[in-house]
This record gives sequence, C-alpha cells and structure tokens, in this order.
Amino acid sequence: MARLERGLYSSSELNKLLRPDSVALIGASANARSLGGRTLANLAGFPGRLYLVNPHQHEISGRACHPDIGSVPEPVDCVVLAIPAESVEDVMQQCAQARAGAVVVLASGYAETGTPEGAAAQERLIGLAAGAGIRVIGPNCVGVANQAHCLHAAFAEFPRSELLPGCRIGLVSQSGALALALSQGAERGVSFSQVLTCGNSCDVDVADFVAFLASEPQCDAIALAFEGLSAPGRLRQALTLAARAGKPVAVCKVGTSAAGRAAIRYHTATDPGDEHLMDAIRSLPGVAVVERIEALLETASFLAKAPAARASGIAVLSSSGGTGILAIDAAARAHVPTPQPQAVTAHRLAAALPAFASPRNPCDATAQATRHPESVLSCADALLSDPGYGALVVPWGRSQTPALLPQLGELGVRHGKPVCIVWMSQLLESGTTLEMERNPSLALFRSLDHCFGALASWLRGITPWRAAPKTCL
Amino acid sequence: MARLERGLYSSSELNKLLRPDSVALIGASANARSLGGRTLANLAGFPGRLYLVNPHQHEISGRACHPDIGSVPEPVDCVVLAIPAESVEDVMQQCAQARAGAVVVLASGYAETGTPEGAAAQERLIGLAAGAGIRVIGPNCVGVANQAHCLHAAFAEFPRSELLPGCRIGLVSQSGALALALSQGAERGVSFSQVLTCGNSCDVDVADFVAFLASEPQCDAIALAFEGLSAPGRLRQALTLAARAGKPVAVCKVGTSAAGRAAIRYHTATDPGDEHLMDAIRSLPGVAVVERIEALLETASFLAKAPAARASGIAVLSSSGGTGILAIDAAARAHVPTPQPQAVTAHRLAAALPAFASPRNPCDATAQATRHPESVLSCADALLSDPGYGALVVPWGRSQTPALLPQLGELGVRHGKPVCIVWMSQLLESGTTLEMERNPSLALFRSLDHCFGALASWLRGITPWRAAPKTCL
Repeated sequence: MARLERGLYSSSELNKLLRPDSVALIGASANARSLGGRTLANLAGFPGRLYLVNPHQHEISGRACHPDIGSVPEPVDCVVLAIPAESVEDVMQQCAQARAGAVVVLASGYAETGTPEGAAAQERLIGLAAGAGIRVIGPNCVGVANQAHCLHAAFAEFPRSELLPGCRIGLVSQSGALALALSQGAERGVSFSQVLTCGNSCDVDVADFVAFLASEPQCDAIALAFEGLSAPGRLRQALTLAARAGKPVAVCKVGTSAAGRAAIRYHTATDPGDEHLMDAIRSLPGVAVVERIEALLETASFLAKAPAARASGIAVLSSSGGTGILAIDAAARAHVPTPQPQAVTAHRLAAALPAFASPRNPCDATAQATRHPESVLSCADALLSDPGYGALVVPWGRSQTPALLPQLGELGVRHGKPVCIVWMSQLLESGTTLEMERNPSLALFRSLDHCFGALASWLRGITPWRAAPKTCL
Repeated sequence: MARLERGLYSSSELNKLLRPDSVALIGASANARSLGGRTLANLAGFPGRLYLVNPHQHEISGRACHPDIGSVPEPVDCVVLAIPAESVEDVMQQCAQARAGAVVVLASGYAETGTPEGAAAQERLIGLAAGAGIRVIGPNCVGVANQAHCLHAAFAEFPRSELLPGCRIGLVSQSGALALALSQGAERGVSFSQVLTCGNSCDVDVADFVAFLASEPQCDAIALAFEGLSAPGRLRQALTLAARAGKPVAVCKVGTSAAGRAAIRYHTATDPGDEHLMDAIRSLPGVAVVERIEALLETASFLAKAPAARASGIAVLSSSGGTGILAIDAAARAHVPTPQPQAVTAHRLAAALPAFASPRNPCDATAQATRHPESVLSCADALLSDPGYGALVVPWGRSQTPALLPQLGELGVRHGKPVCIVWMSQLLESGTTLEMERNPSLALFRSLDHCFGALASWLRGITPWRAAPKTCL
C-alpha cells in the first residue's frame, strides 16, 4: 500500500477528468438499455467535443463512430470505458498511446470480487495508469457528473438540479448506488453542483475529489460518504484544503461497525480504517460528522447556508406545545443548550402571545399562530434579537402559513443568525418544502435530531473555523 | 392528585364519547373559519343524529339550530363545546341537566396557562364532570376522530384514510397539533382507524384511550405519544389490556429531558413523570418505546403487520454494497444480530448472484439486480429459508424494479417472516411508497435506524408476547 501514499492530486491534474474540453466514450451503443447506451444518453448534453468509439458501428443516432481511440483526431481529455472488464487493459494501453488525459472505468470484476484474479487485474490497472501518467476513476464505479461544467460521464442518470448560489452541494460518494440515491434529493430542491463517485478508487479517491471541490467556484459545501481509504492522511489534508477555501464538509462514514467494516472487503475492497478514524476527522475545523446517512444532505445544506454562530444558545419557536417540547428533548440528546430568554425578550414575547401562552424557550405561539401569523414573526424577531441565541429552530406543521417562511428567512439574515425549519408533517414533500430547500436564508430539516445534530457540529467545529479569516488556496 | 387515581374507564363508559349515536355541537357557526364552523364541517359526515346549538341562529346551512342543549329532543351521547372558556362552566351545567353522556372541551385557558385562575377553572371543570358523571375530553384539546365509526369530533381536520385490515393504526396523542402532524401520514398511505387527543386530560386521558382501542375491532396496532399522566399505573394497566387483546403499542414520550419535562408545565400542565417512567413501560410485553417521534408511525405500522419472530438474526439484501453496509452499521447501533448465512444458504445465494458478488450477509445483489430482477427474489427466498434469520431487510432505491415488491411480500408471508423495505431514495414519496405502505405483507421504513430500532423492540419485547396464546378481554 506504500505506493499509494502519494500527495493529493492538484486541481489542474484533475481538470482533464472533471473539467474536460473533450470526452470519448468507448463502447458507445445504440441500445438505450446497455451500459454504453445509457452513458451516451447522459453525455449527450456535453458542450465540448464528444467522440464515440465502437469498432462495430459506423454511426450512432447520426453521430460518427470511431473504430478505436487511436482514430480519434486529438488526444482526448477524458475517456469513459463502457466496456467489459476483459477488454479494459487493452483499451487502457491504447488510451496511453493516444495520450488520453484521464480514464473512467465503469466495469466491475476487480478487487471487490475477493478473488486473487480480481485483485491481480486491479493491480495491473494501477500499474498501467501509473506507467502512462493517466488519472483513473474506478474501476467498479458509476462515474462522475460536474454540473457546473455540463459533464455527465456516468452510466447512472443523476437528476439535474438548478445551481443556486449559497445552496450548492458538491456530493462525493465512493459508492455509486449511494450517490444515485442521495442525488435524488435534487427532486426535492437540493442544488447539486457535482456528483463524484470513485468505486474501488484504484487511483483517484474521495480525498482527491474533496480537494478538487475546494477549488471549484460553483460549490458552497461538500457532502462526503465513503467507506475505505488507501491513505487517511490524504483525506485529512483534503478536508483542511476545503476548510481553507471556506467550504464546510459533512461526512458520513459507511462501515463504522465491525461487521460493516468486514463487509467493505466484499464491496470496494478498500481499507475501512479502524474505529478511531472518524475521531480524527471529527476534530478537524469545518467538518461535521454525521452518523446516519439520512442526515448527510440536510447537514451539508445547512452548513452551506449558515453564517458563523454569534451565541451558543438555541431558541425554539413552535405553534404547538408538543413539538416545542420534542425539540427541546432533541436538543438535550445532542447536548445543545436551550437557555431561557433574557427579561427584555420575555417581555416582547408576552406582548406578542395570547394570555394563556408562556414567554419561554421553547416558545409556543399556540394554535393562534394560524389565525394571527404576524405573532410568529414578532416572536421570531424577539428571539433572534436575544444575544443569548445563535440560531432559531422552528418546528413547522402543514397548518402554518407558508407565506411567513420567506419573512422568517429575512429576519434571520437581518440578525445574522440561521433559521432552521423542521418539517414535522408526515406528508413529506410539498411546494412549501421545495421553496424552503431552495431558499438560501432557510435551512430545512425533516427530523429534529438531524437539526440539532447539525447545530451541535456547527457550534462545536464549524463556527470557530468559519469565524476566522479565510485563506485563499 | 389522589382523586384521579381511579381505574381505567371501561369501553362501555367511553362508548357515548367515541361510538356515539347522537352528537351535539354547541357553538355551531356558519363562519367556516371559526372554531364552530371548522368543527361543524368535520362533523358533517357523522351518520348518527347531529344537533346544532347556537342561541343566535335559527339554522346553519339548512340545518335547524337549537338555542341550548336543553332544547335538543333527546339526551345526547356526545356534546362538543366549540365555545370560549368563559362559557364552558354554564354550558357544562346545562349538559348535566340535559343528561348528556360526554363532553369534548376544545377551549384553552386552563391549567396550561400556569396561572392560579387557569388551574382553578380546570378544578371546577373536574368537579362538574365528577358530580354529573359526565366523561370529559380536554380542555385545551383538538378533539377526536373514530373513523371506524365515521365520527370526526375535532376542530382540526384529520385526513381521512382507507381502513386496511392488518394495517390499521389507532393514534393516541395528548397534543392535538402533534396528532394533526402525525395523521398527515394518511396521505402517504398510513391507515388510521382512530385519532384521539385529550389535551389537559382533566378526566379521560391517554391511558383510557389505549384501553378503549384494545377493544376496538377495527384497530390492529396503537401509536401513542404523550407528555404527562395523572397516574402512571393506569397507563401500564392499559398497555397490558392492549397486549392481552393482541395489539402492539408503539410509544413515544414527549418531554424526556429535564428541560422538556419542565416545559410540559406550560403546555398541558400534566405530570411529566420522572426519568424512570419509560423504563417501566419499556419492559411491558407488546410495547415498543421509540425515542424519536419521526419513528412512531413506521414502528406502529411494522408491528401491526409483523408476525412473531422465528429467529433472532436479521438478513440484509441490497442492490448496492454501500447501502448494505450502512444497514449492517444501523443493526450494530441497535444491537440487532446480523449473522452470516448457513452453508446451504450461501450456496443458493452464489447460484443466484453474478460471479463478482459475495454470498454473504449483507447480500449485495449488485447493479445486476436491475437487469435480472428475478435474482433478487432468488436471494430473498434463500435468506428467508435460512433458520438463522427472523426477518429480511431490503434497502430499496428508485432504480429497482417496483414489480418485485408484492412478490417479496408474498415470499415473506410464505416463510412467516416480515420483509422490511427501507426507502433509501431522497425522493421521499412516490406511487411505490404508497403501495408498500398499504401492503399488509411489507413494512416500509424511510430510515435504517427506524427499521432496526423497530426490529430490536420486536425481537426483545414484542415477539415473546405475540408468540403466546392471546387472551380475550
């Protein structure tokens, strides 16, 4: 493994892979259900020069086909191999001769099989890449999409999302299927600037991807899910680069249990690390470790949107006593302080609330919030004005007035404090959630625990770093 | 408080309240946005005799109005008071004179205000109810719905759901707003037979509701969220009745933290119990305690659908290595065993899987599952046949073949073992999730932790009870 303890690839070394001017697809196919056909459909929107390679076809859907990569009229930046494992080595050699810049290997059948033959095939791939100086993604991977560059070099179709400044998530996932599942968040409003997968990671790995995103202007925060690493030190280095570039990173480790780590051998055959790996990562500035994959995107979106904390207390404003108390319980589980308001704040709350409601934290605006929605704004303004509170958490039900949401976001911006909406409705999605997700002034959570888990990370590790002056890379 | 340590109300004592033949609405209104107007709209489908009472109206929407409850031509089973707190005592006395069976008090302004006046008003209400032998729900409550009886006596509109045998959840929530939020699960396919709230619980409380549901034929499992109790012993008694009737109960305590318990005083002013309350409940047969409100309905639905466990190991079948490993991690967090398959099972798995996949637990059917969906069924059948496994967990992505789902459910039924689908897609709802929720042979979860938390309760406390012969009430 010593061979792999190289430094991070620089952004310019990965440019041909992730910001290519030319792409070739080897194994292009007219069969829309085949690996080559699906990859071709995804690459169709690439604005640069796209070359199709297939020795058995003259043309596909009106595009010319080249018999091999050597027949393509230029050295291609990024070559995608949509071919079976048996042909990969020959074609890799042809790519080297044709001075290709980078190769994406989609095929499975390497170290993840757990067989000596699979491991040997992967070793030969590493040797080929190193000998030719070609950057390789994969094998056993789904591919990559850099939406900021209109590149979708993957056999799976990651949903397109609008690039919303202040909300853009660069998603890095070693597992392609997990990347696909997470990227479906686009349909509920999450803005993905990049979706990058690397499978067995024989050359480029998640650490290189994180370092690349650190220098991508169209990326506000990074969401990272990984299972194994050849060199943990390189990931720490990449996370430090991201922090220096002002980009927080939410991290979920796949395979934290002993049984889970054992299973990694049969998936990507990468080094799962020991049980202390995540402790070292958790202490890095700008990093929020999440235990549950379901919390990853919500945490990354919150971190993309949140300024540095100005106080360590959190205020809760609900329109129901029950949800307010549940929020306080979740805060206690996450060790997030929820102090009582200052006297002046309590006075302002009392003025805005009906007589039977209590000017406390949690502040229960009661069912009257539905009839007098402006009372919610008055309470929010009072709580955000309190110097003891760094953020406002608002459990939200479907009976509440959606028109208040942008105004709550504006109040948060005015006070320089994040407003977190927790969608308590079992009716999980709606136009309202879409609007909240896309609003750079509102963080949306679907679970109280996800919300307070993210707030705990923000108070502990994100804020001290974010408050410090940023260094350019 | 000694006065309140009565026994549970019997089912027949609550019949007039929850299975009434006649209902009167005092404060009926033609204004659709008012308390009385909203309650009237919800009561409109009641198939029994419905009387409107309003001294200022002769008729509302073509229905005659009575000036007071004394003018109604029969003693009414259930009277709903949609009137301000100031008028409640007078009207309660009139209800007693008119020999009403039960009263629902929607008004706020009682003990939850934290004022001596509020507490005194509630004491007077308790005295009036006790003196007249009238059962009271509330005050400070949203009301109740017994869909199995077409009764919707609430000012909030709980969504209607189809009553699906084997899937029907009786929801009991002290907090009305929480009940409203949870009941919206109907729109994603959850079948609610009853939604019962009790607010300040001056007379009837959540324990009485649980005991009532134990004898309701159209209820398969109970979901309970509560914050305070006047007599914890009565809740234990009710949970025991439910267990004897063969109905599992998923319970979430609102206000588990010290700060949360303190906040209860300002919400329903009921006794929050101490930190040991839930330990006593957790050990009862047929009870699953959930820590997170988001897990309540998924756990109750699973318990409604699941037979008793036939083995303590859990098998995981994924179409992606990453999600399989995440599932194993979640199992480890919940202390649920995930042993390796027996040799004969491994042999069957190897025959069904591509050469590069491993016949292990977690079993990764790989992306080939999409092209050869029948391999998923072969693997599921092999795992369900293994005597070491009591249930099968299948993380599910949107790229998988939905047509397989009913077949997976049938396999589970054939082996007498539950099949749990964990919807891993960030695209949270679809026709597929609706179909899964409504299938009595498939349990649907949206979080790996919710799934393994429910399985842990099932293995620990639900199964030994469920496997025992059931006793009729």
